[in-house]
Amino acid sequence: MQDVENRTPPSPSGDATDPLSFRDENEEINPAFVESVAEAIHAGDAERLRQQVEDFHESDLGDLLEALDPEDRPRLIELLGSAFDFAALTEVDDSVREEILEELETQTVVEGVRELDHDDAVYILEDLNEEAKAEILDQLPAVERIALQRALEYPEGSAGRRMQTELIAVPPFWTVGQTIDFMRDTEDLPDTFYEIFVIDPAGHLLGAVPLDRLLRSKRPITIEVIMNDEPDRVEATEDQEEVARLFERYNLVSAAVVDESNRLVGVMMVDDIVDVLEEEADADIKALGGVKSDEELSDTIFYIQRSRFPWLFANMCTALVAANVINLFEESLERMVALAILMPIVASMGGNAGTQTMTVAVRALATRELGRANAWRIIRREAVVGVLNGVTFAVIMGLIAALWFQTAQIGLVIGLAMISVLFFAALGGIFVPLALNRFGVDPAVSSGPFVTSITDIVGFFSFLGIATLWFGL
Amino acid sequence: MQDVENRTPPSPSGDATDPLSFRDENEEINPAFVESVAEAIHAGDAERLRQQVEDFHESDLGDLLEALDPEDRPRLIELLGSAFDFAALTEVDDSVREEILEELETQTVVEGVRELDHDDAVYILEDLNEEAKAEILDQLPAVERIALQRALEYPEGSAGRRMQTELIAVPPFWTVGQTIDFMRDTEDLPDTFYEIFVIDPAGHLLGAVPLDRLLRSKRPITIEVIMNDEPDRVEATEDQEEVARLFERYNLVSAAVVDESNRLVGVMMVDDIVDVLEEEADADIKALGGVKSDEELSDTIFYIQRSRFPWLFANMCTALVAANVINLFEESLERMVALAILMPIVASMGGNAGTQTMTVAVRALATRELGRANAWRIIRREAVVGVLNGVTFAVIMGLIAALWFQTAQIGLVIGLAMISVLFFAALGGIFVPLALNRFGVDPAVSSGPFVTSITDIVGFFSFLGIATLWFGL
Repeated sequence: MQDVENRTPPSPSGDATDPLSFRDENEEINPAFVESVAEAIHAGDAERLRQQVEDFHESDLGDLLEALDPEDRPRLIELLGSAFDFAALTEVDDSVREEILEELETQTVVEGVRELDHDDAVYILEDLNEEAKAEILDQLPAVERIALQRALEYPEGSAGRRMQTELIAVPPFWTVGQTIDFMRDTEDLPDTFYEIFVIDPAGHLLGAVPLDRLLRSKRPITIEVIMNDEPDRVEATEDQEEVARLFERYNLVSAAVVDESNRLVGVMMVDDIVDVLEEEADADIKALGGVKSDEELSDTIFYIQRSRFPWLFANMCTALVAANVINLFEESLERMVALAILMPIVASMGGNAGTQTMTVAVRALATRELGRANAWRIIRREAVVGVLNGVTFAVIMGLIAALWFQTAQIGLVIGLAMISVLFFAALGGIFVPLALNRFGVDPAVSSGPFVTSITDIVGFFSFLGIATLWFGL
Repeated sequence: MQDVENRTPPSPSGDATDPLSFRDENEEINPAFVESVAEAIHAGDAERLRQQVEDFHESDLGDLLEALDPEDRPRLIELLGSAFDFAALTEVDDSVREEILEELETQTVVEGVRELDHDDAVYILEDLNEEAKAEILDQLPAVERIALQRALEYPEGSAGRRMQTELIAVPPFWTVGQTIDFMRDTEDLPDTFYEIFVIDPAGHLLGAVPLDRLLRSKRPITIEVIMNDEPDRVEATEDQEEVARLFERYNLVSAAVVDESNRLVGVMMVDDIVDVLEEEADADIKALGGVKSDEELSDTIFYIQRSRFPWLFANMCTALVAANVINLFEESLERMVALAILMPIVASMGGNAGTQTMTVAVRALATRELGRANAWRIIRREAVVGVLNGVTFAVIMGLIAALWFQTAQIGLVIGLAMISVLFFAALGGIFVPLALNRFGVDPAVSSGPFVTSITDIVGFFSFLGIATLWFGL
């Protein structure tokens, strides 16, 4: 998905917005431009359309597709014909891509996929159903078909699916001069590359040479001498998130992808890794907010309603448990209505403190900062922070409650409850993600309901329980 | 911060953990290894220490520093002497770095900073207080001092602070051959680079040539012919997050940094951009969870307690407002204790539904997916989803409440309240972030308390209000 030339240059800051430019000065999409594209589509004016999106980077073309009405999207592609770069389909939401591919003629898809880099072709094919996938693969030339089929056999989300297979590999005994001449004389080189690989006759990876080192070396030197013989490598079956962490940790721009017997099968590029990291952060943010990670801005109302339902349902269940705890103290509430007024404060403070700790823990687990080596230190720290904030808010809330209801006793009761709930919120906030992670469950997705249950139950139980004992209700 | 060779290779998956390796098979830090490093430090055994961390990548060295007890960290650096790569300090939490720099001899810091790439040096210096910064700068050679001072004059978080100044720039009339010979003969080239730049005699940026294109071109061709004359460029004062979005959108690996008159001053590299994107995602996740974005796992208890206090305090204030709403219905609660038992369910459902919508909106604003062009469509969509989920949960909760309290009327009341709260939660969840964003306030940081206030107030008010009217309480 590399392309450094063919794009609309970002407008330099401070410029006034050209009414016909795709993005305004805030980098936001210009609705007037989208409107004029839609007009060209409705008029069936392929020539005008071609002029409008000429020189568009695949990413801008993707954004333009998303900004159009759904029925105009396949029409734009058919109208543009071979001028439409199918790589743009890798830049749109999954649901948009699926909808477009369904509408397009198979022949259009076949021709578009043929022009793509291997990794982009896999990206577009992998979400199609088996039938549509087979129909398109059947019409591709044998070499491409076999390469794509092999990539599609790797597990979803693995390096094998995301890798680029266009790469340069040379034998170790070649000289720098031979290698440079080979690159000058070969037509069919990858679009972009940052290192060349060194392999033995059986295709096993021996090393890698970054391009800058190749350029700096004199022509008679052999590759063997300048190659890095412990090149960065990942296995094709490895999960893309693990690969992304590696790129991030060691500041890589590309890495060799090898099969289980260390044969070079492809190369992972940093631009794909940037997308993986963004997807991952996106998924964590959404999961913590109770939204499914595949929810996209372009999804339909019914899809979204269904996707948000499970979290709300889980929350209703925990809220019902909390209501049952309150129910235990029915008599106390009847005798002292102040308890009903104050109890949501205690539960809400617990919920928020628990969420704070949980957020830190979930994120630290995702970035591998939290592990065996420091878990106990972090648990102790959170517990102490919980007690300290508990005491602080016990004093503040205690004073407010005492003044409000004109009795020091209610202040004392809510103060004690506050310490208890903030302490258990801290413990729940750290133990729940750690435990889920240990059992192989994604803590970002599942921690929320557990932590809320704990804080609600502890909150209501301690406040109403302490009040019942204290006032002898 | 580039280094592709000098690192401990990741252990191939499936290997048993070597007791003396730094990371175990899950990529987690091995406590036994950290322990043995600590022993060498306590014994003052520089030789053994050097052997242990030999060939460590700066990133692993940074992780090792963080895993050690705070008092051992500066001792490791002093013991290693020139064998310690100061770039490791760019890989640790800010608080850890500040603590270490405070403890080290100025002379050690000066020597360490001198060995660094420009961008790493800026990264380490920028957080020091003015006095410490001046003391270190004074002892650096004039050329380096002036370059660093100029970088430090750019605004915090700008491209000028993060850029690398080591780069290759050639005149447009040079040939490919001349350029390659120049690179072969020059000792002092940047560590890693992916393109060379083309400038005029006054230093204005004319173009760029990716290394692979340079390698593929014949020696007599002039640079002018093969250069891309609309190279990717950013202004030095531009915010690093804007630059990161550009890299992400257009899949860049490097981009020229220019001053206001288009003179080439540096280059931004993708590995730094990966760090920026991670920091940004981190900040959003933490902000949504009510944690300050600069909170780090290594912070002290008191720092964390203070940093979490404001959010909890804001939450207490909104909870008090909600309590006052409940207080309006004191008499109704006294007459019908079932209301006190059920009311937290209504508020909690609203809070969760509001958080769902808010999470989607905040994230879409951060990634620039949500803008003028589609705001109204998303608002309408969320409102409809709110009503649909409202009706669904009205039926479910209505049935449960009716069965629990053996009266259909309470089911009807909670059902109506549920529709009202989920509708307003959806509107609040989308309008609050959009409004904050419009007024230039970071929606990730500030949306939470507003949305919770809205859902609490609407939740308690509609449930208790409808009940009071219905039952004539």
